[in-house]
Amino acid sequence: MKKNKGVLSLLSVLVFFSACITTKQQTDPKNLVIREQGSFAVGGTKTTEQGSFDLNNALKPQGQTFHGDHAYAFYQIPVKAHKYPLVFLHGAGQSKKTWETTPDGREGFQNIFLRRGFGVYLLDQPRRGEAGKSTVAATITPVPDEQFWFTQFRIGNYPDYFPNTQFPKDSASLEQFYRQMTPNTGDFDGNVISEAVSQLFNKIGEGILITHSQGGGPGWFTAIKNNKVKAVVAYEPYSSFVFPKGELPSPIKSAGLFGELKGTEIPLTDFNKLTKIPIVIYYGDNIAKEPTKIWNKDHWRSGLEMARIWAATINKHGGDATVVHLPEIGINGNTHFPFSDLNNVEIANLLSKWLKEKGLDK
Amino acid sequence: MKKNKGVLSLLSVLVFFSACITTKQQTDPKNLVIREQGSFAVGGTKTTEQGSFDLNNALKPQGQTFHGDHAYAFYQIPVKAHKYPLVFLHGAGQSKKTWETTPDGREGFQNIFLRRGFGVYLLDQPRRGEAGKSTVAATITPVPDEQFWFTQFRIGNYPDYFPNTQFPKDSASLEQFYRQMTPNTGDFDGNVISEAVSQLFNKIGEGILITHSQGGGPGWFTAIKNNKVKAVVAYEPYSSFVFPKGELPSPIKSAGLFGELKGTEIPLTDFNKLTKIPIVIYYGDNIAKEPTKIWNKDHWRSGLEMARIWAATINKHGGDATVVHLPEIGINGNTHFPFSDLNNVEIANLLSKWLKEKGLDK
Repeated sequence: MKKNKGVLSLLSVLVFFSACITTKQQTDPKNLVIREQGSFAVGGTKTTEQGSFDLNNALKPQGQTFHGDHAYAFYQIPVKAHKYPLVFLHGAGQSKKTWETTPDGREGFQNIFLRRGFGVYLLDQPRRGEAGKSTVAATITPVPDEQFWFTQFRIGNYPDYFPNTQFPKDSASLEQFYRQMTPNTGDFDGNVISEAVSQLFNKIGEGILITHSQGGGPGWFTAIKNNKVKAVVAYEPYSSFVFPKGELPSPIKSAGLFGELKGTEIPLTDFNKLTKIPIVIYYGDNIAKEPTKIWNKDHWRSGLEMARIWAATINKHGGDATVVHLPEIGINGNTHFPFSDLNNVEIANLLSKWLKEKGLDK
Repeated sequence: MKKNKGVLSLLSVLVFFSACITTKQQTDPKNLVIREQGSFAVGGTKTTEQGSFDLNNALKPQGQTFHGDHAYAFYQIPVKAHKYPLVFLHGAGQSKKTWETTPDGREGFQNIFLRRGFGVYLLDQPRRGEAGKSTVAATITPVPDEQFWFTQFRIGNYPDYFPNTQFPKDSASLEQFYRQMTPNTGDFDGNVISEAVSQLFNKIGEGILITHSQGGGPGWFTAIKNNKVKAVVAYEPYSSFVFPKGELPSPIKSAGLFGELKGTEIPLTDFNKLTKIPIVIYYGDNIAKEPTKIWNKDHWRSGLEMARIWAATINKHGGDATVVHLPEIGINGNTHFPFSDLNNVEIANLLSKWLKEKGLDK
């Protein structure tokens, strides 16, 4: 008996260790453990050309269909996922690449939040990237404009980097940043985009919408259209701040290259839907505090000012909107892309903290 | 002592089982365990507009740069990965979506081969999808043509599905299939594509190139340009079969809507590079055996015939090329997209068997 128990004991220990060894690679915290991943098209419209399809003249459009204006989504659901997935909508000239590997090769929000247990849905908006099938025609011309974007996106005032910039200063990173832009295959249409993103939420259920820049406008309208959007996180939204009829603020003059910034008037009943969910808006650094002739710093000054007026209006109507200007909480040097800047883990920590405070990471 | 050993034994068993429980989700075979994943742009060119950039006229092109014609790659490396990753290049009108979730929502080759231990690199070729920044202008027009593609891609002769088709017959699957097409943002240029894909192999090292349809041509040229391509797997290549100077076969007449099929003449020294690596080519079902007026079946008849002449030429020069016409080995009903058809696991098994035979799955 004694001997047998000793053997059993030894055996159990060996089995235990062998189990540990065989599962080591699976349990290595560096690994991403994905329960499910895939992609699909969602939303969009279908048109049918008059006439009837002739199999013997199959290149003639008569009677043929065209499906377009859908969004493309690539999703990954980790093991033990939180209740609400994160849905990521890119900004102007960008694609879902925005949220993937950073220009200098570090992990972006896709991997960072997968590691934190969130399902992630990365979108190419209608008429962009892999959702390129547009119902409207477009002409695409290669226009040398990258030094403009370097400046507009507040990496610096080309060729100078801002002294405290969180953008990597090596040329390979800047090249990756320039190459991650991709053109519209049809005119930008915020309603087409919010329709497709709303259809995504109908498909996947409740979740949290995270927008960047130009994606901010369609983000507000998606949340108005679909109560499955349980929160909105907006990085540096600029245009399409929505206000109730009669409460539209005066346009904000700006030395920015897109001129003065106006709000958009919508019915109060629609506006009120944005007061039912928590909303947080983040802006980076090198944004002017007072009007200035430095056009990039003044462009984003007008955006930040409008965001503050908007949040105050949301809160006046009983909502929960917060505007965070990162330098005011001691986080300096961020560009228009805080989520891929050198300090993007700190930016992610800030979001995780907010999600926890709002009970959105259950 | 007896008691202590009993306790130790019990303790070990408990620890063992608790270890099993805590690692169960990680070791669930349904989970994908990813050691590393990310995305990047690779290859491409850079142009600079004459003049000098003026920060105060930042929308003028003078002195500004334009990076374009790169490929976009999304990669995933599983734990315990085989030596050679698989690099996937899509066909005409497609993007990397080709290799992801199938139109009816099953796993595509991306997940299937990740589960089999291969690193996977999914490409959007230059001027397509998220690699949309093209150095040449393009006009994109929405043309209703989906019933043509249904027929050209041998799902059937619209509106009829081929009786034995491996394409799902529900409307939702067909809609997903139509929406996964995405337009060129600049003219198709095989050389631009093979340059970018060759640069990818310079970046990632040795691997196996898997092409579909129109990707076949750039695939041959990539393997000629870069000896890090250790094998080529081509699904239904059509155009750009390359032959040594003086060995070009006669064009193959076809009732297909793209007319007769010609080979492409290249220097023998280039051709010989394709004789140094194993190559396998797969074609699906509903391809005519003899010339016929049914244009889709005859289009692919000419492609299959040219592929056989090409493989014979490769082998005559000491190479190792195999053409597999799936119905001839008892696999019936495949469309132009065997890797996403209903039997795509069987199609994947066929590839796994070939990779093993050639020692490419070490």
